[in-house]
Amino acid sequence: MAGNSFGMLFRITTWGESHGPTIGVVIDGCPPGLVIDPLEIQAELDRRRPGQSRLTTQRRESDQVQILSGVSDGVSLGTPIALLVENQDARSKDYADLQQVYRPSHADMTYDFKYGRRAWKGGGRSSARETIGRVAAGAVAQRWLRDTYGIEIVAWVRQVHKLVLSEPDYAGITRDDVEQNAVRCPDPDLGQKMYDCIDAARKSRDSLGGVIEVVARGCPAGWGEPVFDRLDALLAHAYMSIPATKGVEIGSGFGGTTLTGSQHNDEFLIEAGQIRTRTNQSGGIQGGISNGMPIIARIAFKPTATINKEQSTVTASGETVTLAAKGRHDPCVLPRAVPIVEAMTALVLIDLALQDRGQMGDRSPDLTPRF
Amino acid sequence: MAGNSFGMLFRITTWGESHGPTIGVVIDGCPPGLVIDPLEIQAELDRRRPGQSRLTTQRRESDQVQILSGVSDGVSLGTPIALLVENQDARSKDYADLQQVYRPSHADMTYDFKYGRRAWKGGGRSSARETIGRVAAGAVAQRWLRDTYGIEIVAWVRQVHKLVLSEPDYAGITRDDVEQNAVRCPDPDLGQKMYDCIDAARKSRDSLGGVIEVVARGCPAGWGEPVFDRLDALLAHAYMSIPATKGVEIGSGFGGTTLTGSQHNDEFLIEAGQIRTRTNQSGGIQGGISNGMPIIARIAFKPTATINKEQSTVTASGETVTLAAKGRHDPCVLPRAVPIVEAMTALVLIDLALQDRGQMGDRSPDLTPRF
Amino acid sequence: MAGNSFGMLFRITTWGESHGPTIGVVIDGCPPGLVIDPLEIQAELDRRRPGQSRLTTQRRESDQVQILSGVSDGVSLGTPIALLVENQDARSKDYADLQQVYRPSHADMTYDFKYGRRAWKGGGRSSARETIGRVAAGAVAQRWLRDTYGIEIVAWVRQVHKLVLSEPDYAGITRDDVEQNAVRCPDPDLGQKMYDCIDAARKSRDSLGGVIEVVARGCPAGWGEPVFDRLDALLAHAYMSIPATKGVEIGSGFGGTTLTGSQHNDEFLIEAGQIRTRTNQSGGIQGGISNGMPIIARIAFKPTATINKEQSTVTASGETVTLAAKGRHDPCVLPRAVPIVEAMTALVLIDLALQDRGQMGDRSPDLTPRF
Amino acid sequence: MAGNSFGMLFRITTWGESHGPTIGVVIDGCPPGLVIDPLEIQAELDRRRPGQSRLTTQRRESDQVQILSGVSDGVSLGTPIALLVENQDARSKDYADLQQVYRPSHADMTYDFKYGRRAWKGGGRSSARETIGRVAAGAVAQRWLRDTYGIEIVAWVRQVHKLVLSEPDYAGITRDDVEQNAVRCPDPDLGQKMYDCIDAARKSRDSLGGVIEVVARGCPAGWGEPVFDRLDALLAHAYMSIPATKGVEIGSGFGGTTLTGSQHNDEFLIEAGQIRTRTNQSGGIQGGISNGMPIIARIAFKPTATINKEQSTVTASGETVTLAAKGRHDPCVLPRAVPIVEAMTALVLIDLALQDRGQMGDRSPDLTPRF
Repeated sequence: MAGNSFGMLFRITTWGESHGPTIGVVIDGCPPGLVIDPLEIQAELDRRRPGQSRLTTQRRESDQVQILSGVSDGVSLGTPIALLVENQDARSKDYADLQQVYRPSHADMTYDFKYGRRAWKGGGRSSARETIGRVAAGAVAQRWLRDTYGIEIVAWVRQVHKLVLSEPDYAGITRDDVEQNAVRCPDPDLGQKMYDCIDAARKSRDSLGGVIEVVARGCPAGWGEPVFDRLDALLAHAYMSIPATKGVEIGSGFGGTTLTGSQHNDEFLIEAGQIRTRTNQSGGIQGGISNGMPIIARIAFKPTATINKEQSTVTASGETVTLAAKGRHDPCVLPRAVPIVEAMTALVLIDLALQDRGQMGDRSPDLTPRF
Repeated sequence: MAGNSFGMLFRITTWGESHGPTIGVVIDGCPPGLVIDPLEIQAELDRRRPGQSRLTTQRRESDQVQILSGVSDGVSLGTPIALLVENQDARSKDYADLQQVYRPSHADMTYDFKYGRRAWKGGGRSSARETIGRVAAGAVAQRWLRDTYGIEIVAWVRQVHKLVLSEPDYAGITRDDVEQNAVRCPDPDLGQKMYDCIDAARKSRDSLGGVIEVVARGCPAGWGEPVFDRLDALLAHAYMSIPATKGVEIGSGFGGTTLTGSQHNDEFLIEAGQIRTRTNQSGGIQGGISNGMPIIARIAFKPTATINKEQSTVTASGETVTLAAKGRHDPCVLPRAVPIVEAMTALVLIDLALQDRGQMGDRSPDLTPRF
Repeated sequence: MAGNSFGMLFRITTWGESHGPTIGVVIDGCPPGLVIDPLEIQAELDRRRPGQSRLTTQRRESDQVQILSGVSDGVSLGTPIALLVENQDARSKDYADLQQVYRPSHADMTYDFKYGRRAWKGGGRSSARETIGRVAAGAVAQRWLRDTYGIEIVAWVRQVHKLVLSEPDYAGITRDDVEQNAVRCPDPDLGQKMYDCIDAARKSRDSLGGVIEVVARGCPAGWGEPVFDRLDALLAHAYMSIPATKGVEIGSGFGGTTLTGSQHNDEFLIEAGQIRTRTNQSGGIQGGISNGMPIIARIAFKPTATINKEQSTVTASGETVTLAAKGRHDPCVLPRAVPIVEAMTALVLIDLALQDRGQMGDRSPDLTPRF
Repeated sequence: MAGNSFGMLFRITTWGESHGPTIGVVIDGCPPGLVIDPLEIQAELDRRRPGQSRLTTQRRESDQVQILSGVSDGVSLGTPIALLVENQDARSKDYADLQQVYRPSHADMTYDFKYGRRAWKGGGRSSARETIGRVAAGAVAQRWLRDTYGIEIVAWVRQVHKLVLSEPDYAGITRDDVEQNAVRCPDPDLGQKMYDCIDAARKSRDSLGGVIEVVARGCPAGWGEPVFDRLDALLAHAYMSIPATKGVEIGSGFGGTTLTGSQHNDEFLIEAGQIRTRTNQSGGIQGGISNGMPIIARIAFKPTATINKEQSTVTASGETVTLAAKGRHDPCVLPRAVPIVEAMTALVLIDLALQDRGQMGDRSPDLTPRF
């Protein structure tokens, strides 16, 4: 419905370009009476903000959120909440040479072909600065999910380049575990190795990709709108709308395809009076609907397209040229993408929670059958 | 928007349960004047139909399509096209024991929790028979894409269990190549191995999963609606809404995360007067918009949840029971899922084509800049 | 969202042409567990059906509803409910002469211009037979509104040509009052005059228009989604989507424009412990949200465009011709439009009820503040 | 789709409360390359702005528009355009007494019941200041309609209280005619009488209502998406979403109900090589689709709910109190509502134009058949 909105009942609309005056978001459909704490939103934006370490772009942005509407006496009114951040350190001259040049694996060429023009400074609308609005809205969504259901969403860097975290503890990893290092890997030793690996790539003017993993704990069974707006389908939609993503897995994912059915099936059992599954290959989703187990997803991010090595490319007028990027950028986007993944998870969950409540009525946490 | 519709301008709505009287679809927004050939639709349904080989469920369904509206003199009127298939061989008694039992890794439990009831015969609404409507609508979409742009969509089985097709020829594989064996693998030798592998699983009362790959050739640059309705995001949404899917990749996917930026970037060049990329790690999509290169995706399907081995599970009333499935089913869903993947690809492409045309005006094939 | 769907959470999609094989509707988002009684749906269709009296078209259609999906054990499953009626008495030859001719004030010319073709037999998609799907879905919606909130929707013919019912009793008129005569005017004497007036028009080969009024009693305060999806705005949308409508009023409507604010304002007071308004110029809606008072609307229907008098018109190829209609038609559509107006009212109310419940949670009837 | 958005392909989302820091709008889906002239937008806002004459509220707001995104080098980029106006003269203390009081025929009570709270200062979200976003977006839409099709939208005050403009010249009235007096009535003498009438109401602490009429000239035949998103249905939706509206008519409207079919039908004829209608009772719309004739609508506005006379009402806690309004307000909203009506007309037309182009392809102005 016009591509800059996401969600149906809890619906966000983002605007703004990398080097325009502002980046913003309107949240429509937020339940009234929710605590909207600017510091809480800011804390999430700070996790996404550039300049957190030398692994991130050196663009200086404080990304201070302003609340323009929809909040009174510290709580949501139920009417649209507009949030805005000013762009401060837009050095457009860094990009002056790039107006005609199509950077490899960037969106320059496709935006030009689609719209017949583009905001060429700093990636314009295709810049990941657009995700500021998502993170801000996601903070609001997370607050509601936590206050209403005790839902906890935690993402972390599972893989950088060829360094992979093995067997994460889905029940136990906390946001504090993740925040203890600049890479946002819950294993400190591996985090340090990932840090060094990214720093080495930076120095060699190259870039790296990897995998972010996310878990949502505490979701009641029943969320998801088959057959098309399945919970897993909306998560896939949400994650693949983040810049630089190339893949999404739920639960067992691609790895599960080498198991047999008898190995892969999640047997049901009763645990503490509730229906649970012995294993969680399903990643908390069956038939497109949450089953009460932790929801688990992984998202593949390609290596950053901006590198400082020379590359051959073409211009808008069809000339072949050699390009060496000068814009500021992250040698690996994963550490800063962690809060974006959490935000998109929350935006899907709250929207499906409200849709489910619309059709079914309140799904009180204590309505879950017990045995 | 209510979960049984997909698409915005070219919008389908499906209905029907596995053991109800009918399965159907309404297509709204089809461009008028398009040839709607019942034989062409039937041919696609026949590829999805059960009973094609001993690898598929032995349920006997002819799946004959009826056109209920929207077509006159063999072409679309521009008004809703309703298509319907009757269920013929619904042996509900096979499922009588299952009314109270939650089959592992099926949607029984989640449908019950969500709706407070479910059509328990044969999986009801969560059965893959629902995809009949998608395949029928996809045939219409494919006709339009082919007639208007010469677009060709071909999917195949890339992997079954641990058997993987290496280096498929994205430019060359035809639907004939795929249709030459029952598994729908374009490599006949590997196809035979996959066939034997699935047959062995069937005999051992187990099931297998795998990966389907799809390519769309001939898409013009410019389709996709950032920032949320990116082409890759909508494809991920579409694929993950197919029953039994656990993962989606575009282009380099998860494998690309172990490359560096300089290895991964797709350099632009001029080829036959057009801008192309030397490699296609991007899978034909950059910044969420098609770039004119082949669009490439892979979808992970878990092993079929229905197996004939004994499994432990629980009932709706919390009893622990042992289950041995008796319903008819496929030991591996991949061969029959190939036309479903093609259909969902087509549904995404036509919808984005129409959205793009709405905002931008006609994107005539010869408007692409040439040098 | 493709023009043949209406509603967001309770969403209907209609299909079918006047002279095609079937007319149908899919209802998506119906709350599960609702009694779906085929006789109840049929009763509503029978009120809309042709051939009820000599005032209506003599086309013979039994309009027997078939339930194709979404219902089990007499209640809704929460998944799509598809309903279908077969066209039986399509005498397309009556229309053979009309293939090229644009009937005045019909949709022939505009459908041709829009789609480049049209189903010309019997009005095709623009025929009011399309409203069968609305009436069937409206019966389902009315059942839910009645069962859940005790809401009662009653419409009647307020005006035929120059005969106007004065001061209807909004609190008291029942559906029985309305059904006691063929015109559906709750005043029997005036109903007879209207009957004679329509019959005279029929004999003189002419047609008449008029006004239908509708009241919805028992709606809780709080339904409506400002600023755009106000309750009054959605009602206006719904009513103006019925064929032959030319105007909509809520509460005081156009008449209220000649009052002053002090005459027009509805003062609040406490009545039986609840906040009510002394007058109801607002028609039960303030700021786009229901206020708990009866919701009142009026809809203007133009005189039937099909008349048996000679008229001058043009053909698709630009020839000027003289036309004398031969198709079967109603000399006044109002009596049969009464159940359509009720249905559209119910479809708006249920959708806004579910939307409100999604954002706010259950609005239990006894949550209304009392004093 | 969350009630603060309107349109599908050209979609606006508004935010902001009367006494919050800002009022704004995001436009998503604007065709790229459109001239976005801040002065042109400002000119429309100035027509809506308070303080234009003593007939309007004395609140002082310059309503200066700021462009936050989506525009580069003076033209639209095709990505979201965010527009913002700061609230300057919010005298919240004027409303302090009203926090608990439900003003008659205002939205105070319904917002409280719906959301459980409200922004009570100056009407909060239900204030007509919200329409700033609509007028700004409408200016953009009008520019596109004019540049692409030469479409001209002109609205005027047709009636104030009992003073009615008779037989306006739909083909000839220009915006200059309308702007020549403070009331925005194209007949200067009647405009003066209306002015005096409103001024008298103001002095007697009362308020007046009336009717605005609008014509859109130059629309091609073919716009409108039956069966639900008919052009007339969307116009009715749009107009009834404007604060204080109680009725909508298209073409002959309620008056046409007293004609017979033979009097009311619009005969087709060929004029200057094009199909036209002799009369225009249809108001330019047949079967929900534009027919190329001027589109004509009328909208009823109730007398302003805010009056300075004493009224009886109740408080949120159920007390009966006497109220004398002190907030600043317009004794008659019609003069300032004229640009709002034009804006909503433009927003409907551009959205349907883009939808039509999506499904049908470009409808070039010279594609209209000629004879």
